[in-house]
Amino acid sequence: MIKKITLIGAGNVATHIGVALMNAGKEILQVYSRTSKSASELADKLKCPYTTDLENILPGSDLYIISVADSAISKTVNEFPLDDVLVAHTSGSTDLDVLLKNNLRPAVFYPLQTFSKNVEVNFDQIPLFLETFYEEDMKKLKAFAGEISSKVYSINSQQRLILHISAVFACNFTNHMFYIAEDILNQHQLDFNILKPLIRETVRKAELSGPYKAQTGPAVRNDKSTLKLHSEILSSFGDYQKFYNFISDSIISKHNQKHKYKK
Amino acid sequence: MIKKITLIGAGNVATHIGVALMNAGKEILQVYSRTSKSASELADKLKCPYTTDLENILPGSDLYIISVADSAISKTVNEFPLDDVLVAHTSGSTDLDVLLKNNLRPAVFYPLQTFSKNVEVNFDQIPLFLETFYEEDMKKLKAFAGEISSKVYSINSQQRLILHISAVFACNFTNHMFYIAEDILNQHQLDFNILKPLIRETVRKAELSGPYKAQTGPAVRNDKSTLKLHSEILSSFGDYQKFYNFISDSIISKHNQKHKYKK
Repeated sequence: MIKKITLIGAGNVATHIGVALMNAGKEILQVYSRTSKSASELADKLKCPYTTDLENILPGSDLYIISVADSAISKTVNEFPLDDVLVAHTSGSTDLDVLLKNNLRPAVFYPLQTFSKNVEVNFDQIPLFLETFYEEDMKKLKAFAGEISSKVYSINSQQRLILHISAVFACNFTNHMFYIAEDILNQHQLDFNILKPLIRETVRKAELSGPYKAQTGPAVRNDKSTLKLHSEILSSFGDYQKFYNFISDSIISKHNQKHKYKK
Repeated sequence: MIKKITLIGAGNVATHIGVALMNAGKEILQVYSRTSKSASELADKLKCPYTTDLENILPGSDLYIISVADSAISKTVNEFPLDDVLVAHTSGSTDLDVLLKNNLRPAVFYPLQTFSKNVEVNFDQIPLFLETFYEEDMKKLKAFAGEISSKVYSINSQQRLILHISAVFACNFTNHMFYIAEDILNQHQLDFNILKPLIRETVRKAELSGPYKAQTGPAVRNDKSTLKLHSEILSSFGDYQKFYNFISDSIISKHNQKHKYKK
């Protein structure tokens, strides 16, 4: 059973995982971060010791969670001082194999969520995607994950990468659409708040009927005069005109394509 | 006071408005649609007579709501048989002036929402954007709109067009991002449902902190190796690779731009 955990990294993801583990009654043995500021901040929060030197990582944890920038995972593993321990990274787009070093027992603990500093999350509703190199580790990791979330899945590195890419569309790119909408409104002294009921309904309908059926607006209606008018107005908004034409064209082609299949 | 309403058009918007008005105790005097099928369907729902001939539009309504395709509004007004009556169209991108004919009293009644057939909405939460040509009509229309929604605003045609364009980004384009995410997942036997908690959190955070602060992911971190990996994987997904690069570049440039301003 996984009871003691060490957190390697002290960013958004490490912090949110650490808090969730503490709330679930787990013991955080130690926190590591390169900078003493972030290491001490998270250690304070989790009431545990910290180090800024990988060499001082303590033995004795049931699980070492590496939650650093993707580009730093490999270096972190190379300098990791212990062997034959269970080590999980939290990255969507990094292969499990990167942890195949020093007789480590490699694992992945990938929470599919958008984490921001100072924005609390309900961890129980966050899907956790697990992978292990050794079968016996999966049982332990599943039981552990089940203690902090009710949505636990086992998938391989290739599926996780696909999942991460789809999440970039559904979360980061969606959020960028909100940003552009806000920017356009603000340039005309209109408030983003007036879009909130529309945004909520957009999500509700996509969940209810699926996004294909839920689509509305000038592009799916192929309403050429409105598309042209909008595009003209956006010519003074830098790359937003390109955005508008590009995404509208994609909606038109996806829907015409499917209509063809239906015939 | 506006009590009797005639609906010109029987599509999604007309239907949802008609049902909301009926539920608010208004009398629907008549429904018009070009085709008897859609005219009779809506008339059945609203328990009122219908016509498929604009010449047979009855006098005596306090408000005639024209809710047809944008491209058909002008033709509809030209063939409208009455004068000196209050006539409102429901279009986001059509100028009020299109109704300046036959001594009509022009108005706009624009509900900012995504309407689909058979998906019920709570009209009270839908923002309604009003415009009138004559000042005395605004009072009437505001009181009327206030009976079916708690969010009533008065804006001009130019602001309404901007609002509509921003809504295309926040709703239609957002929904298209969901569609692409679903398509990518389905091509790898993964289910769109696993993204739902992420999507809900994305919206919650955008509302809480604003979309600029809420942004996360490889683009805003300028995580070049992940961006490159995702883009490579998407090369087998048709135009999704272009999408990925285009939107990621926009996120990077918007955030770098703002960082520059902050210095």
